[in-house]
Amino acid sequence: MFLSKLISIKNALKIIENNEKIEEYETIHIKDAYLRVLGEDIYSHHNSPPFNKSMMDGYALISKNTFGASVNSPKNITIIDEIGAGEFSEKEIHNFEGIKISTGAPIPKGADGVLMEEFTKLKGNDLEIHSQITPTENISSKGEDIKKGDKILNEGTVLKPAEIGLISSAGYDKIKVHKKPKIKLITTGNELVEPSKTIEKAHIINSNKYLISNMIKSIGGIVNIEYCEDDIEKVKTSILKASDEYDIILTTGGTAISKGDVVIDAVNLIGEVLIHGVAIRPGKPFGFGKVKNTPVFMLSGNPSAAITQFDIFIRKYIFEIQGLKYDPPVLKRVSKLKIPSNLGRTDYVKVSSDDKHVNYFLNKGSGIIQSMVKGNSYLIIDENEEGINKGDIVNIIFFKTMELN
Amino acid sequence: MFLSKLISIKNALKIIENNEKIEEYETIHIKDAYLRVLGEDIYSHHNSPPFNKSMMDGYALISKNTFGASVNSPKNITIIDEIGAGEFSEKEIHNFEGIKISTGAPIPKGADGVLMEEFTKLKGNDLEIHSQITPTENISSKGEDIKKGDKILNEGTVLKPAEIGLISSAGYDKIKVHKKPKIKLITTGNELVEPSKTIEKAHIINSNKYLISNMIKSIGGIVNIEYCEDDIEKVKTSILKASDEYDIILTTGGTAISKGDVVIDAVNLIGEVLIHGVAIRPGKPFGFGKVKNTPVFMLSGNPSAAITQFDIFIRKYIFEIQGLKYDPPVLKRVSKLKIPSNLGRTDYVKVSSDDKHVNYFLNKGSGIIQSMVKGNSYLIIDENEEGINKGDIVNIIFFKTMELN
Repeated sequence: MFLSKLISIKNALKIIENNEKIEEYETIHIKDAYLRVLGEDIYSHHNSPPFNKSMMDGYALISKNTFGASVNSPKNITIIDEIGAGEFSEKEIHNFEGIKISTGAPIPKGADGVLMEEFTKLKGNDLEIHSQITPTENISSKGEDIKKGDKILNEGTVLKPAEIGLISSAGYDKIKVHKKPKIKLITTGNELVEPSKTIEKAHIINSNKYLISNMIKSIGGIVNIEYCEDDIEKVKTSILKASDEYDIILTTGGTAISKGDVVIDAVNLIGEVLIHGVAIRPGKPFGFGKVKNTPVFMLSGNPSAAITQFDIFIRKYIFEIQGLKYDPPVLKRVSKLKIPSNLGRTDYVKVSSDDKHVNYFLNKGSGIIQSMVKGNSYLIIDENEEGINKGDIVNIIFFKTMELN
Repeated sequence: MFLSKLISIKNALKIIENNEKIEEYETIHIKDAYLRVLGEDIYSHHNSPPFNKSMMDGYALISKNTFGASVNSPKNITIIDEIGAGEFSEKEIHNFEGIKISTGAPIPKGADGVLMEEFTKLKGNDLEIHSQITPTENISSKGEDIKKGDKILNEGTVLKPAEIGLISSAGYDKIKVHKKPKIKLITTGNELVEPSKTIEKAHIINSNKYLISNMIKSIGGIVNIEYCEDDIEKVKTSILKASDEYDIILTTGGTAISKGDVVIDAVNLIGEVLIHGVAIRPGKPFGFGKVKNTPVFMLSGNPSAAITQFDIFIRKYIFEIQGLKYDPPVLKRVSKLKIPSNLGRTDYVKVSSDDKHVNYFLNKGSGIIQSMVKGNSYLIIDENEEGINKGDIVNIIFFKTMELN
């Protein structure tokens, strides 16, 4: 029998939340920041651009000197200096003077615009200009993008290329980030074998190993995998050892109620089982406990049930201990399907939905990884509903919105 | 001046496509398959489930023996064997016999359904049943999920957790994938410095190094970064060396037309420049060439221009040599903005769009990494349009759809 009465998802989430670990931080170089979660607000050390800079290769001029210039009526300017990228000029330009300037270089004193090289002809120091410019033309002004002291990123931001570029512009080479949780995945089950072309009777390929480990990886966890037989002593030893070395332990298999199901019992002996059995389908035999203060999430051996348990209970936990909110939007769609359900449990049915409808569902049962590949969303049938009919407005969550985004 | 006349995006893409490298493959273990691109179609070696299996812990029975059973009117069954996960039974059940069975275990001969343990009471070998079952109840039938020989995944699929789980279930421990392209990123520019709190006049932080390298990483490339001064001999040496060791070379800076702009000239001396100058904004001074048959993409030093050039020209290339289609959907939205543009060039304006509208744009100029962080889409103004007005229906591409998905 289950060690506790079946509890609701809401109560299970509350118990797990009450046992959430404190967030930890580390300082890393920005070269290693890809997809890390920012652990501090970032304020810019600099103006960006740091000076009024030229956006074109051309000539820094006084705009009013150019008014009226055209191919048919060129004007003449004397060039008094040249500024390459990374250089600057101490010279100031006066009426009908100009300075040759590269893209990105600082605008010299006196100039208020840049004329593109294409519209000029240079002979020695004499520049003939064939076009006019307006004040500030082709100048990106100091602090236009970012002002020194501006907050540019918030704590809890997932760092993607643009964010990392922005942090570097702001003058940081090191930043504080949330530590990636170290997670031990223990797959249990005497029936499990590695993938191969031929498989003996009653054996089952350990797809959870590859499925769940990659789900952990995809949301920022560092995962270490171990296989353990359905032997209570061995399971105890594995979990005890992992509880010293990892932030979180995940097990698959051994959470139901037949003779080989030793995981719950093992945790009960060396720690505390806080949840066993949740009113969901698939995934009822979900367990949660603690061993030496390390949370242990006990998932079903059945991959489809394990996926659902992971999506409901573990994603949230792994997001939150990294400083991320986990709050995938629940959207309304019109169901093209009739799906029966039982009162008193919440159903998570893997379906394919679009902008308007839930179009089909993949399988009524558990055990179906294929449904994760072909479906794109969960249809959620509340515990107070006896199934849904065609045309009902239903709640769905797109898988994509459960990912790091 | 530009080495070639400004060409259209379409023609530039054609030139680049004509110089696309042949795809390469490698065989890897599935434990390393996360986000790799499948290089073969996958056909299942197995039925899944491989046998009729129990979806519950309970008793394998003959359904018609259970008809009418309830708490008030229980029926009696003799238990003749027990099957744990990973085990099977050679015994066949006859009328009013049953076999105790674990979740995942194979259904024994004679049985056509499983009654959950919760609805039973066992004394020795005598089972009292308090509920009835229908034929096939709680049985997942052989091949229900996947049939042996079924094609389960197509060449070119990006492998995420569910796909990797599915491949393992199909019996594969090794698979053929597209090689990740090895990419050398050479950032050039005498003005460039590493991020720090204080920066000398005319210096600029080398944000491209962090920005572009992570853009490469985010779409599956393996990137190696190098800095090079604006010195034509040094640039030649760097590019020549990289052309022997990498699949693709990317440079930033030195593609415009002032004195420090040596990259185009360097490539012209040691190889071939096929494109210099494309009719886009930002990003006009884009270059493309070949050195010893290795493609060299020459991006602007200006980060915003470099991002746009990367998005238009390089993403497609890196997707395609990995066997992926790059075809982000162009969507229609109503513009809340008036944006001027010049005939004869295509504008890629970074904007913020929603389901219906383009709401605001971030900056008219280049140099603006912030626009990548705050915007979510490109508004594309065709070369034949002189800008857009409020209320116009415009073309946009969401940044998200340009990513590996």
